[in-house]
Amino acid sequence: MAKKPKTAIQPTRQEDYPEWYQQVIRAAELAEVSPVRGCMVIKPWGYSLWENMQAVLDKMFKDTGHENAYFPLFIPMSFLEKEAEHVEGFAKECAVVTHHRLEPGPDGGLVPAGPLEEPLIVRPTSETIIGSMYAKWIQSYRDLPILINQWANVVRWELRTRLFLRTAEFLWQEGHTAHATEQEAREETMQMLKVYADFAENYMAMPVIQGEKTAGERFPGAVATYSIEAMMQDRKALQAGTSHFLGQNFSKAQEIKFQDQNGQEVFAWTTSWGVSTRLVGGLIMTHADDDGLVLPPRLAPKHVVILPIYRNDEEQATVLEYCQKLSEELSSQSYDGQPIRVMIDKRDLRGGEKNWYHVKRGVPIRMEVGPRDVAADSVFMARRDTSDKSGIGRREIVQTIGKVLKEIQDGLFERARQMRDDNTHEITSLDDFHSLFPPTDDDAKGPATGGFAICHWKESPEVEALLKERKLTIRCVPFGEENAQGTCIFSGRPSQGRAVFAKAY
Amino acid sequence: MAKKPKTAIQPTRQEDYPEWYQQVIRAAELAEVSPVRGCMVIKPWGYSLWENMQAVLDKMFKDTGHENAYFPLFIPMSFLEKEAEHVEGFAKECAVVTHHRLEPGPDGGLVPAGPLEEPLIVRPTSETIIGSMYAKWIQSYRDLPILINQWANVVRWELRTRLFLRTAEFLWQEGHTAHATEQEAREETMQMLKVYADFAENYMAMPVIQGEKTAGERFPGAVATYSIEAMMQDRKALQAGTSHFLGQNFSKAQEIKFQDQNGQEVFAWTTSWGVSTRLVGGLIMTHADDDGLVLPPRLAPKHVVILPIYRNDEEQATVLEYCQKLSEELSSQSYDGQPIRVMIDKRDLRGGEKNWYHVKRGVPIRMEVGPRDVAADSVFMARRDTSDKSGIGRREIVQTIGKVLKEIQDGLFERARQMRDDNTHEITSLDDFHSLFPPTDDDAKGPATGGFAICHWKESPEVEALLKERKLTIRCVPFGEENAQGTCIFSGRPSQGRAVFAKAY
Repeated sequence: MAKKPKTAIQPTRQEDYPEWYQQVIRAAELAEVSPVRGCMVIKPWGYSLWENMQAVLDKMFKDTGHENAYFPLFIPMSFLEKEAEHVEGFAKECAVVTHHRLEPGPDGGLVPAGPLEEPLIVRPTSETIIGSMYAKWIQSYRDLPILINQWANVVRWELRTRLFLRTAEFLWQEGHTAHATEQEAREETMQMLKVYADFAENYMAMPVIQGEKTAGERFPGAVATYSIEAMMQDRKALQAGTSHFLGQNFSKAQEIKFQDQNGQEVFAWTTSWGVSTRLVGGLIMTHADDDGLVLPPRLAPKHVVILPIYRNDEEQATVLEYCQKLSEELSSQSYDGQPIRVMIDKRDLRGGEKNWYHVKRGVPIRMEVGPRDVAADSVFMARRDTSDKSGIGRREIVQTIGKVLKEIQDGLFERARQMRDDNTHEITSLDDFHSLFPPTDDDAKGPATGGFAICHWKESPEVEALLKERKLTIRCVPFGEENAQGTCIFSGRPSQGRAVFAKAY
Repeated sequence: MAKKPKTAIQPTRQEDYPEWYQQVIRAAELAEVSPVRGCMVIKPWGYSLWENMQAVLDKMFKDTGHENAYFPLFIPMSFLEKEAEHVEGFAKECAVVTHHRLEPGPDGGLVPAGPLEEPLIVRPTSETIIGSMYAKWIQSYRDLPILINQWANVVRWELRTRLFLRTAEFLWQEGHTAHATEQEAREETMQMLKVYADFAENYMAMPVIQGEKTAGERFPGAVATYSIEAMMQDRKALQAGTSHFLGQNFSKAQEIKFQDQNGQEVFAWTTSWGVSTRLVGGLIMTHADDDGLVLPPRLAPKHVVILPIYRNDEEQATVLEYCQKLSEELSSQSYDGQPIRVMIDKRDLRGGEKNWYHVKRGVPIRMEVGPRDVAADSVFMARRDTSDKSGIGRREIVQTIGKVLKEIQDGLFERARQMRDDNTHEITSLDDFHSLFPPTDDDAKGPATGGFAICHWKESPEVEALLKERKLTIRCVPFGEENAQGTCIFSGRPSQGRAVFAKAY
C-alpha cells in the first residue's frame, strides 16, 4: 500500500467532504458551535474575514446610493401576518418572545413572567417592520426612492444546522428599497444582484451564475427572486445571495402609498436583497484544500505572515530586527488600494507547528526568516495557493508583493472557474440526466457526483417528484436562458427555458 | 412684551428640556419610536453618526490589542442563574423566548407553538454566554490573555424609554477579557476606561469625570465598576461608559480555570466594558442648541454642506459647476487624518428651507454659493457652532478648512467644559447641599437646578433616604478622591472620600 500523503486536515475532501468542512473551520479557528442550540460563535479569525466582507459590500452599497439604518430586532406577530405568503414562509422557524421578565418559580428556579399582550417574533427578515416605517415616511413621490440597508442579526429556527451555512442565528445585511415606478424597482433589484456577483467573483474569487429562481423557490411574498449560485468543491450548489422584486405585494399589505406627480394616490414598488455569513461557508468550500483554509488576498485578514526562526538570544535579536524592518517595508506597499496587511508571529512555538498554524488559517503568503536569510538579505517564501516555496531577495519581494497577491487572487478565481466549468453539463436527454445524478448517490460522503446540469424543462408534478427523489433542486434560470426554445428532457413537452439543476446546500 | 427670538426647535431648552430633546432628534432625523414597544428606529443620519463613533472606537480597541468576535443572541436561562447577583440584576428586564414556531390557533390567528425545553433570554449583556466559551478555550496560562470585543444589539425590557438614552433594544459594544493575574485584569479595566474618556473628550467633545461607582451602583456581579460621567446642558449627569473589574466572580461561577506556570489550577480574572448608542443621546444633550443638533467635526457624517443658489438655468449651470469644483477641492483637503466630508445639496427646495434643514442636522459648516459668489470667487460661509456668517475667498477656505474644523471641535469641548465647571460645586455643608438641590425642583421642565456637587460622605440609610427623596444619585468617586480626609456633610461622621452627587439620566 502506497504511503498516504500527510494532510493537515483529516479526513480529506475525498474521504468525507462534510466532515472535512467542519475540520477546516476548527483548524482555522473560524467558528464553533455554541451551547445555544443552532447558534454559532464566530471566533476572531472568522469574524475578521466577515468584517472585510462587510467593508467591501458596505462601500458598494454606499457607492450605489444606499444609506445604513437600524430597525427593531422584534416584529409584532400581527405584522408578519399581514402578507399571507410571507408569514406562511416563516411561521415554522420563528423564535417567539412571550414574556418580559423572570420570576422565582415554585421549585425555586426562575420561570418566565410578565406575559406580553402580543407575542414578538425575533426578526427572520425585516420587510414587515421596515415597511411599516416606510408607510409613515412616504407621502409623496418626492420622498422616493428610499434606499436603505441594514446590517443585523436574524433568527430562523433551523433544526439541522451547519456552521456558517445554516444556523439559527446569522449575521447579514438586508437592503430594503421603495420606488415610485415598477421599472425603477426592477432596475434596483438587478443592480444589487450585479453588486453581489461582482463581490462574489472579484473579491471572494468565487464564480457565480446569475439568474431567476423558479416560482417554488421564490422568497415568500416576492414577485420575482434572483440569485447568484456558486459551485462548491463537492459539486453542490450554494445560493450565495438573493435580490427580490417585491412588486406591490408588501406595499399593499402595509399601505405604503404616495401621491404621484399627477396627484394620484398609488402604491410604492419595493425590493429587498441580502447576503449573510453564509458567504464565509461558500468561501471555505470554494478554496480550502486538504491542508485547511485558503484565503483570497482581497479578503484575507492578513496578506503576509512573517515567521522568525532563531536558536539563541543573539540570533533572536538580529532576526527580529530584520523581520520588523521587512514588515514595515511590506506594509508601506499596497495591494487593492490598501496597505499590505502583515503580521509577525513571535510566539514561542516550534517552527513546524507555527508554520502549519498559518497554513491551516489560509494566510496567502508565509515568509520564514532565519539567521542565514538575514545574512543573504532574503526570505524563504511559501504561497498558500500553490504550495510554491522559494528563497527570494528582500528587495524583490517588497517590490513585487502587490503583484504576487494579485496573481494569487486571479489564480484562485481561475481554478474555481475551471472546476465549475468542468462540472457543468448541458444535458439533452433523460438518460444523460440519470447518469449525471444516479439514484444510488444519496449518502455518499465524498464529492457528490453530478455538478450542474443545464437542461430544458417544463414544470410538472412528475419533474417535482423526480427532483425530490434525487434530492435535486432547480438552482435558477440563468439570464439569457428564459426564452431558450427546446424540449423538456423529462416530459418531451415544449420547454419553458433552460435551468440549472444541482444538489444544493 | 419683547418679541421672542425665533428658534428652529420648539420648545427651547429653557422652556421644556425633555421635549426639546425629542424635537431635536425629530428635526435632525436621527431616530424615531417604532411600533415595537420601547424599540427605536435609527434613521440614516443618526446611524451614520453611530457608524463614525464605531469606527473610532473600533480602531482604539484594536490598537490596544483587542479582536472582534460574535457570540449568540440568546442566553439559556440556566446560564444567567449561575451568578447570583447577575441574574438578580437582570431578571426584571428580560425578553424571554419560549417557543420556536407559530401555528394557527383556535381563532384562526397564529399562536406560539413548539415550546422550548429551556427558555432563552435575549442577551441583556453577554458575560455568561461568553464566559462559557472562555471556560472551553482557556486551559493554560499560555491561552491568556483573551482580549475580545463584540459589536451587538442587546435587550433590556425598560418600561420608561427615551430615544437613545434608554430603549428596550440598543446597540453597543461589549469587551470581555480574561487574564492570568488580578493586576493585569485591573490594568485592563483602567485602560478601557481611559479609552472611553479619550473618546468622549477628544471625539465627542464631551468632558467627563472618571471614577469608581459606589457599591450600590455596581454592575451586577462586578467587584468594581468604573464609569465616565458627563454633564448635560440641563445639568443632569449622564453615565456614558462603564468598565468593570469582575474579579473571579464570573470565572468561579463558570469554571474559567487554567494551569498557571507552576502547574496549579487557578481561576482566571475577568473584565467587561461597554458603551452604547446612549452616547448619541449624550452628544445631542451636550452640544445641541435651540436651533437643533450641533455636531463635533470629528464625528460629523458631513463636515461641509454646499448650498447652490440660482434663479434660472443659466445661473444653475454656472453655480453647480463652481460648487462641484469647490467640493472636489475641499475633499482633497484633510482633517483628522481623513478627507474632508463634503456634500452638495442640489434638491429643489427654497433656500431658507434648505439652509435650516442642515442647521437642524448640525452640519459644522454651510457654504452658500450664488452667481455673485461665483463672480467674486468666494463663498458665504456659516458656522454651526457660533452662528458666524461671512464671505470668504475660495482659495482661503480651501486652504484653511482643516484649521476651521479643528477650531470648531476645540471650541465645542471648551464650551462644554466651561458649562460643566460652572455647574460643579464643592459642597461642604448640608445647607449648601439643600440650596443646590432644593426639594421643590422635582417636576421642573427647564434645566434642573444643581449640577454636580462634590462632597464628603459616608454611606448610611439616612443618606440613601435623602438621595431617594431628592431623586439624586452618587455618580462616582472621582479618581484621587477615594482617600480624601474629611467629614460627611450628611452625618458629621468621618467621610469615606469625596463623591459626585447629581440628578442623572
